Amino acid sequence: MKKRKICVVITARPSYSRIKTALKAINEHPELELQLVIAGSALLDRYGNAVEFIKKDGFEIAAKVFMVLEGENPTTMAKTTGIGVMELTNVFYNLNPDAVVTIADRFETIATSIAAAYQNIPLIHVQGGEVTGSIDEKVRHANTKLADLHLVSSEEARDRVIRLGEYPEKVMNTGCPSIDLAHEILKDPELDFDPIKKYGGVGMEIDWQNGYIVVMQHPVTTEYQMAKDHITETLKAINSLGYPTFWFWPNVDAGSDGTSNGIRSFRELQKPENIHFFKNMEPLDFLKLLKNSRTLVGNSSVGIRECSYMGVPVVNIGNRQNRRSRAQNVLDVSYSEKEILKAIQQSIDSEHFPSSNMYGNGDAGEKIADILATTQLSFDKTITY
Amino acid sequence: MKKRKICVVITARPSYSRIKTALKAINEHPELELQLVIAGSALLDRYGNAVEFIKKDGFEIAAKVFMVLEGENPTTMAKTTGIGVMELTNVFYNLNPDAVVTIADRFETIATSIAAAYQNIPLIHVQGGEVTGSIDEKVRHANTKLADLHLVSSEEARDRVIRLGEYPEKVMNTGCPSIDLAHEILKDPELDFDPIKKYGGVGMEIDWQNGYIVVMQHPVTTEYQMAKDHITETLKAINSLGYPTFWFWPNVDAGSDGTSNGIRSFRELQKPENIHFFKNMEPLDFLKLLKNSRTLVGNSSVGIRECSYMGVPVVNIGNRQNRRSRAQNVLDVSYSEKEILKAIQQSIDSEHFPSSNMYGNGDAGEKIADILATTQLSFDKTITY
Amino acid sequence: MKKRKICVVITARPSYSRIKTALKAINEHPELELQLVIAGSALLDRYGNAVEFIKKDGFEIAAKVFMVLEGENPTTMAKTTGIGVMELTNVFYNLNPDAVVTIADRFETIATSIAAAYQNIPLIHVQGGEVTGSIDEKVRHANTKLADLHLVSSEEARDRVIRLGEYPEKVMNTGCPSIDLAHEILKDPELDFDPIKKYGGVGMEIDWQNGYIVVMQHPVTTEYQMAKDHITETLKAINSLGYPTFWFWPNVDAGSDGTSNGIRSFRELQKPENIHFFKNMEPLDFLKLLKNSRTLVGNSSVGIRECSYMGVPVVNIGNRQNRRSRAQNVLDVSYSEKEILKAIQQSIDSEHFPSSNMYGNGDAGEKIADILATTQLSFDKTITY
Amino acid sequence: MKKRKICVVITARPSYSRIKTALKAINEHPELELQLVIAGSALLDRYGNAVEFIKKDGFEIAAKVFMVLEGENPTTMAKTTGIGVMELTNVFYNLNPDAVVTIADRFETIATSIAAAYQNIPLIHVQGGEVTGSIDEKVRHANTKLADLHLVSSEEARDRVIRLGEYPEKVMNTGCPSIDLAHEILKDPELDFDPIKKYGGVGMEIDWQNGYIVVMQHPVTTEYQMAKDHITETLKAINSLGYPTFWFWPNVDAGSDGTSNGIRSFRELQKPENIHFFKNMEPLDFLKLLKNSRTLVGNSSVGIRECSYMGVPVVNIGNRQNRRSRAQNVLDVSYSEKEILKAIQQSIDSEHFPSSNMYGNGDAGEKIADILATTQLSFDKTITY
Repeated sequence: MKKRKICVVITARPSYSRIKTALKAINEHPELELQLVIAGSALLDRYGNAVEFIKKDGFEIAAKVFMVLEGENPTTMAKTTGIGVMELTNVFYNLNPDAVVTIADRFETIATSIAAAYQNIPLIHVQGGEVTGSIDEKVRHANTKLADLHLVSSEEARDRVIRLGEYPEKVMNTGCPSIDLAHEILKDPELDFDPIKKYGGVGMEIDWQNGYIVVMQHPVTTEYQMAKDHITETLKAINSLGYPTFWFWPNVDAGSDGTSNGIRSFRELQKPENIHFFKNMEPLDFLKLLKNSRTLVGNSSVGIRECSYMGVPVVNIGNRQNRRSRAQNVLDVSYSEKEILKAIQQSIDSEHFPSSNMYGNGDAGEKIADILATTQLSFDKTITY
Repeated sequence: MKKRKICVVITARPSYSRIKTALKAINEHPELELQLVIAGSALLDRYGNAVEFIKKDGFEIAAKVFMVLEGENPTTMAKTTGIGVMELTNVFYNLNPDAVVTIADRFETIATSIAAAYQNIPLIHVQGGEVTGSIDEKVRHANTKLADLHLVSSEEARDRVIRLGEYPEKVMNTGCPSIDLAHEILKDPELDFDPIKKYGGVGMEIDWQNGYIVVMQHPVTTEYQMAKDHITETLKAINSLGYPTFWFWPNVDAGSDGTSNGIRSFRELQKPENIHFFKNMEPLDFLKLLKNSRTLVGNSSVGIRECSYMGVPVVNIGNRQNRRSRAQNVLDVSYSEKEILKAIQQSIDSEHFPSSNMYGNGDAGEKIADILATTQLSFDKTITY
Repeated sequence: MKKRKICVVITARPSYSRIKTALKAINEHPELELQLVIAGSALLDRYGNAVEFIKKDGFEIAAKVFMVLEGENPTTMAKTTGIGVMELTNVFYNLNPDAVVTIADRFETIATSIAAAYQNIPLIHVQGGEVTGSIDEKVRHANTKLADLHLVSSEEARDRVIRLGEYPEKVMNTGCPSIDLAHEILKDPELDFDPIKKYGGVGMEIDWQNGYIVVMQHPVTTEYQMAKDHITETLKAINSLGYPTFWFWPNVDAGSDGTSNGIRSFRELQKPENIHFFKNMEPLDFLKLLKNSRTLVGNSSVGIRECSYMGVPVVNIGNRQNRRSRAQNVLDVSYSEKEILKAIQQSIDSEHFPSSNMYGNGDAGEKIADILATTQLSFDKTITY
Repeated sequence: MKKRKICVVITARPSYSRIKTALKAINEHPELELQLVIAGSALLDRYGNAVEFIKKDGFEIAAKVFMVLEGENPTTMAKTTGIGVMELTNVFYNLNPDAVVTIADRFETIATSIAAAYQNIPLIHVQGGEVTGSIDEKVRHANTKLADLHLVSSEEARDRVIRLGEYPEKVMNTGCPSIDLAHEILKDPELDFDPIKKYGGVGMEIDWQNGYIVVMQHPVTTEYQMAKDHITETLKAINSLGYPTFWFWPNVDAGSDGTSNGIRSFRELQKPENIHFFKNMEPLDFLKLLKNSRTLVGNSSVGIRECSYMGVPVVNIGNRQNRRSRAQNVLDVSYSEKEILKAIQQSIDSEHFPSSNMYGNGDAGEKIADILATTQLSFDKTITY
């Protein structure tokens, strides 16, 4: 029997964590062959080159595609997407997959969608149907309209994709693969490594053994000139709090230069003594670090998803996760030192929350692989209404 | 007062006809400045270079963009789109418009949408909300999800765009600008030129004065290998009918080579004596030719739109116009010489139909310009549900 | 022992004929592995898709690259080259060859050179050191300056490359592989097929059995607007001569539209009765056709090379082959109906010439393979003076 | 009288300094119109965005082109060049200049050359005819073969370009415009600003008033994996010397990440107390800083050119400036802490040298403008032998 060739395109480090258990399940499925394409910032050292993690996890890479244009502004984001369309078209033409998987809503994911859809290759969109703000919102729903099969992460998302005119039998709630990792963590939640020893990083040698918080705040693309102001509010809050803090650099987006600049300037001027900075961490280690933290601060979707499953309190800043369904672990605040500070203090004092399965039960990867092996693949569709 | 700069991107000859009256109204509006970008096949002689018509009509061209990759297959369609994203991003970056207009659903129109949306330029989509088959269907709705304002051509289309999660106040039915031209024709419908003398073309000097039909049949992209078979059925029907026929070459799409090859082979072998071939015609002349014809044969949207307003009988072949709302002037048939032949004979004998205003009243261009001048422009949106 | 991977990039049909015997010798060499990349117009039906010939000849294709932008003007030529650099870079990155071969001087060959040289892959240039006019002249010598090893076709070419500052031991005269085919033809020169029966083509069923001429005239890029005028002079000469003629369509270049248009217009208007048109022919058949013709008319390099070896009289029009070394079989004329006509008449009446080995002895392919297997490969060089 | 439109493309910060006085002279010339295009790393903050300096100097920018692909390896260098060809072709097509100027030998300068030459725009190459190692060597001479007019910086360079087959009357020695700035400095050489106060930077507040050295060392592309090792030797030498040092970050090239990483690692681990780091400096300030330094260490061409005119001792490391003509101010050493240390100590103790005019007399800018205004422009050439 001929195996179905499933081509998955990873364009950024965080997308890898989000899809990893599905990759594993595809790789191990007897009727599937994985064609893994690593592209965009997932190849770049500046954003925590994902390639070494991927190889360590035992995946073979079918093709690599450099496509990120420097500049980190809306113009280079658009051009990067154009380059991505050209290059990924070539890659699919040569790999000749039976289906292509595009993940979520980063700006460059539409390049994967176009390259597949225009070549009449069945396109599978993972994690559609959610709601946020900014360009991601447009990209996510455009991906939905280009895709032939939708593997979503929650019932609410499933309803929304169907309302967008997709056939209900083509929209399946598998839960989010990122919850699979959180599920594993909960079996053995102890922090069994020294983060600074294992990952280096820069900044102070903070005393984290008696409690720490984690910060991860990305720029919001439609407000990219304000990125520096936004990050500075958070930096001031964390600095004045004085609590031991692990801080993760933002990923590549228009404005990440504003965010990075904000962090660098603040470091040079204020020399904060309670912050240690990391570029990257293996996904499981990162989740363990979160599970054992007092709270996660920032605007990462990890706060909405994995942390809800692990019960970790989250201070969610600004509107990046706007309207994404959230459990009771999330406290929303605006870009304000005062609000951020108050919310962190409240979170530090609070207990962790009970686990929520709003985004799945921990078996999303296997569900995805099973569907990919058995569902009928097609590339011609019409809106339902 | 500063005029609003409205950038309209034309990527194909037929799109120019569809939007022409809106361009005129924008050009003449005291509060608007037109930035006209001509790109893709609209620049190419092979597909009837639209530039000379555009200049003759008095429009200035702000930028030209060569972007069509040769090959006419799904792979080059996708790459052409990628090139378009790169190039149009540059063009918008330099023209710095207040809004960008993307038209309908050709594959490369998503390049315009991405280049504008990613650069936070308000994107206006004209002629969304309709339903067809093939890649156009995916592209049209993806354009809707990337656009901030929707100027649709029928009430049915308006309802559909709203169901796609757009705010009702951002979805306006202006009617289709192509109907504006049909409206003008109806005021003075006489055929006041000799098509062969004025446009040359190749093939027989047919005797068209006592009745003729017009054929215009494009390849359907998801079936591009069958394009030659499809066109051959039509050719055989027209040939055996023997009725005087004006035939228009297809526009650029994957498969147009199949279609063109089909026509060329048939010509060489069968030397049909009742067919004269044209590459292109000025839009008003083309409509007049249709108005005075016995029937239009093929799969052009002109049959569904302009012909419904002008009451011209149409033999619509195959599923290219699938599920597009149609008036009573349209007879649908499959790719079958026999069916086509029978339907044409029936149409030739039938009277013309009463005018339908399903696609507008003839004032779409002015409505569009008025909305562009007065509506609030924005580039940040969220789905309504 | 690990085989050396030799990547050869073919970007146009004529380049395939020029390099074919070398490909064969590489393929059969025990220490070499051929990685054949087919790109540009060699993939396009309009210019006589070379892929079927290549497969028939038993070569495997490692990658295909669509890169020709439509428009056929200097702007699209430049952009096509840019696309080629992007795409071929990717291809080499994935194929990881030990050396890359770029052929001669077509505008897009510099894309191969840049993609290899910038990635530190030893670059081998075949057929450098010659002299012509137009953009080819600039491209050829730029290729020389980017290349690390030079396999030239004549002693004169070898001297010139060395004068360009290349190390003499890196410049080897192998002769031209195109002569290898001519060499084969001379062993069995009879025309053993009916050209029209075997290749179809369009135009009159001419009576070629008692003598015919062959025409092949390409546009000259720096004069592309004059292409139509140039070709018309030739058409008028051939038409007034009335001698049976096989005419080959030009290959893709800025201006080929002018040339093609010229031919099409002339055909419609004059309906020449002594011309049959072909798009393409298998290389060996083409050479046989030439060998048995009375004369070759036009500006193809085949007239300078293969015809000199086969002794076929050539009427060489214009300055496309300017300053390329030529044997006594070549009569040079300008773009003038009268001059062309006179020269053709003279050629028809003349005997064929003795064979010249100015461009090799018929063993170029094997010499090339031997050098590729044994020479030291490097990618770092400095000018010799 | 219609002014000649001269389009100059600047793709990197250092190129701006090299050409600045020519830009000024073109701008002020009554018969010339400057069209300034800023592209590549000259637009990027990471490499010291040149745009603010350019505006401050009073130049208008006709177009900006983002084209640097992230990754800083040979593959992204090649792709960046491909993107550059596509984009610059568009820019020239729209600006429609009478001539295009490409500068020196950075890898992406060939994009300018191709975009101009292929569109039949006269191409002027500044600073050809020199000799170095690495990819620059190939690019420089390929630029020469694509260019129609050569404005070189020394008699030796002029001889070499002529030997490359260019017509002597098309090769003019203007001297190097960078010497014009050095010439100005010599009129008023005092260091009239506090570098740290004016430019910030990072690292120690060193005591520079009593003597300092300057370091500027770029990665060498064909050895990019060794970049980290190379820079570490220099860092160790400077660290063990303990002498006050101003250190400039490298510009964008494959391997600059290795170099940057080397510097960052060394800083984190060794916390050198005698080094202050800058990203960028206005050209005149930079020259003043050099003029007042004890010595320049590294591999910048500034050491060979400007420093020879200003008489500043230079420790030139490795083979990046290989075979470039040099005056007696240059001491060549290999990548060895010991050799570097010894040479710096010798330089610190030495007097400054007498001025050399090997690279010009300080009037290159005006000479260039005069030639551009009066010379006959052409785009068709043939090799001289």
